[in-house]
Amino acid sequence: MISTKMKKMVEGSSAIRAMFEEGNRLAKLYGPENVFDFSLGNPNVPAPVGVKKAISEIIEETDPIYLHGYTSSNSGYPAVRAAVAESLNRRFETEFTGDNIVMTVGAAGGLNVILKALLNPGDEVIAFAPYFVEYRSYADNYDGILVEVLPDRETFSPNLNAFEKLISNKTKAVIINNPNNPTGVVYSEKTIKDLAKILEDKQKEFGTSIYLISDEPYRELAYDGVVVPWLTHYYRNTIVGYSYSKSLSLPGERIGYLVIPDEVDDSEDLKGAANVANRILGFVNAPTLQQLIVSKCLDEKTDLSYYDRNRKTLLAGLTDAGFSVVKPQGAFYLFLKSPVEDEREFVAAAKKYNILIVSGRSFACPGYVRIAYCVAYETIVNSLPKFAELATEYNLHQ
Amino acid sequence: MISTKMKKMVEGSSAIRAMFEEGNRLAKLYGPENVFDFSLGNPNVPAPVGVKKAISEIIEETDPIYLHGYTSSNSGYPAVRAAVAESLNRRFETEFTGDNIVMTVGAAGGLNVILKALLNPGDEVIAFAPYFVEYRSYADNYDGILVEVLPDRETFSPNLNAFEKLISNKTKAVIINNPNNPTGVVYSEKTIKDLAKILEDKQKEFGTSIYLISDEPYRELAYDGVVVPWLTHYYRNTIVGYSYSKSLSLPGERIGYLVIPDEVDDSEDLKGAANVANRILGFVNAPTLQQLIVSKCLDEKTDLSYYDRNRKTLLAGLTDAGFSVVKPQGAFYLFLKSPVEDEREFVAAAKKYNILIVSGRSFACPGYVRIAYCVAYETIVNSLPKFAELATEYNLHQ
Repeated sequence: MISTKMKKMVEGSSAIRAMFEEGNRLAKLYGPENVFDFSLGNPNVPAPVGVKKAISEIIEETDPIYLHGYTSSNSGYPAVRAAVAESLNRRFETEFTGDNIVMTVGAAGGLNVILKALLNPGDEVIAFAPYFVEYRSYADNYDGILVEVLPDRETFSPNLNAFEKLISNKTKAVIINNPNNPTGVVYSEKTIKDLAKILEDKQKEFGTSIYLISDEPYRELAYDGVVVPWLTHYYRNTIVGYSYSKSLSLPGERIGYLVIPDEVDDSEDLKGAANVANRILGFVNAPTLQQLIVSKCLDEKTDLSYYDRNRKTLLAGLTDAGFSVVKPQGAFYLFLKSPVEDEREFVAAAKKYNILIVSGRSFACPGYVRIAYCVAYETIVNSLPKFAELATEYNLHQ
Repeated sequence: MISTKMKKMVEGSSAIRAMFEEGNRLAKLYGPENVFDFSLGNPNVPAPVGVKKAISEIIEETDPIYLHGYTSSNSGYPAVRAAVAESLNRRFETEFTGDNIVMTVGAAGGLNVILKALLNPGDEVIAFAPYFVEYRSYADNYDGILVEVLPDRETFSPNLNAFEKLISNKTKAVIINNPNNPTGVVYSEKTIKDLAKILEDKQKEFGTSIYLISDEPYRELAYDGVVVPWLTHYYRNTIVGYSYSKSLSLPGERIGYLVIPDEVDDSEDLKGAANVANRILGFVNAPTLQQLIVSKCLDEKTDLSYYDRNRKTLLAGLTDAGFSVVKPQGAFYLFLKSPVEDEREFVAAAKKYNILIVSGRSFACPGYVRIAYCVAYETIVNSLPKFAELATEYNLHQ
């Protein structure tokens, strides 16, 4: 009796559920310390102490009717939106006001809001493989079609030649995710400039507006001093989606925002549509206590050194074992080339060592696997001998 | 450049925004104490003290990684779902487990989740006028069609004769809202039994499953000792949507749940689909801190006596002034018959006295207006002389 679309999705999602249940089963059998679960992107660094302090202060100082009430606009508290805009202006030399900010139920909520606002049935949304597989569902929610650009397996930066050929008069939006899930690659300024040039040319060629949606939940997670370009400086029709899930370790609280600059085409309509979409999709407004928390923690940041130590240790260990990896400079993921063509075989082999990793085809990139290193340092250290045994199985040391 | 559907909605929503801005304008001109804004359903009774206590305890006692992290299932914390089920079982003599509960981003989030799970394009969803106008948008989000049953202007209970004729083999769901927004009427057990009988017969006639979705954000707000029937006892294919927005005065926090009983057709598929829908619509999971708060406050309740005093004072005052009103026994709304056929004229006339009320056609019921009495008692008291002057304008005292 459920909808046809959902029927397929429920069947598809059982794989992920099975993986989760497998993790639980293994933990019971061997003890959780002997299971190396790298499958989920759930941060394991606690929220900065400022978050707890902010909550205590807010509940002492704020009128509960204001604190827990609907916000006057579905886009959020005016003061919070203004504070977010100011913070962006300080960091990126922009000139936003609160009017350009829509507080959202995380980045996933924000992406749904902006796609609802933009898409007519049949409109195309381009994403660069490998990509977060939910993008396909988000586009499909509004009868949009996700068009996939094949990966550049050398750099894992956007494959711009293939991209250019896929843009049509049906292209309404392009999503990029920088730093990238699942590869951990950070797209360079040069890549962004080249991508922007292609979009400008195609807008002219087709006489259309193509919105670049920059999904940036991992913005603050960049290592080695690498710079993550701020896209509104490079392409006028840019919309930014952000989440505090990783930067403040608040993924369950569902708090983020969209930036809709005045410069984008039909900006006023788009801001109005995002406001209405936030309401009618059932979000209504981003959770109010969380809005106030993040506005008090705009200069707080997760403990990056924790993830960085994990990253370096894992990268060194896997390389020593003979694996071929994509060097990650952002997020908390590492993308590893499967030693056999069908990476599902490799995922199954890893499970024999109680190592849980995700098949690359979950990110539209077969032949690779994703390792989420947002885990305890001990998990990394203890997993490395197991990875080494696994490598030996594939004769990677020869 | 925005989507065609949204274009119309942004235009339509400007009326509500205009009303809001009008309220602000009047407050600046005459002082907020001289403006009687009955337009919004934003509770003005603060959250019970238990909520603040719960927050303090939770942030002291809970591992922040668990507290702010993604829940293992998109349907919420297992312990919270189990606690909600237990609480329902105690109150309604049901036998739910946590497996029957999906924690949602308020009732609006829950309704979107269940409609996403159920609807194929063209499926019909029946609602009884007057109804919360967003239902139409929620159905439309999934290409469903809202079919409206004309109001019974005698009782403002569901017009069951008209209902029976509108059910077809396309009917996938029926939404009822009890206690009702905008009328404040509580549907009786007899009404529910009659409605259930019609649905049973029509399911047989068409060989289909018709889901009754009971939208119950106002369940705890019932006066005069009136009983709000628990619908799973009357009709097997019932799904309940709940919100803590009113019972705990947490509307901005976006926390509620769906109940999907084991007895409904395709229950397992439906629970799976609701779980996936929660994720892909961008909710991901209901805000985690709020899940823990409500599970600690299951026996807390808003100060009903506050709303009841408002209700009685307003009802008496308006009746004395000569207005014809629908007697409200639930929620915090009063539905008043416009003294002129086109109630928009009456809304405009009320505004001259700084009284802000909402036109009945916003609830698919022209000829009436909605007065939201979730305001300060003083606002009620001070508005009554103005309502009396307004009544005199229409010669209601003759």
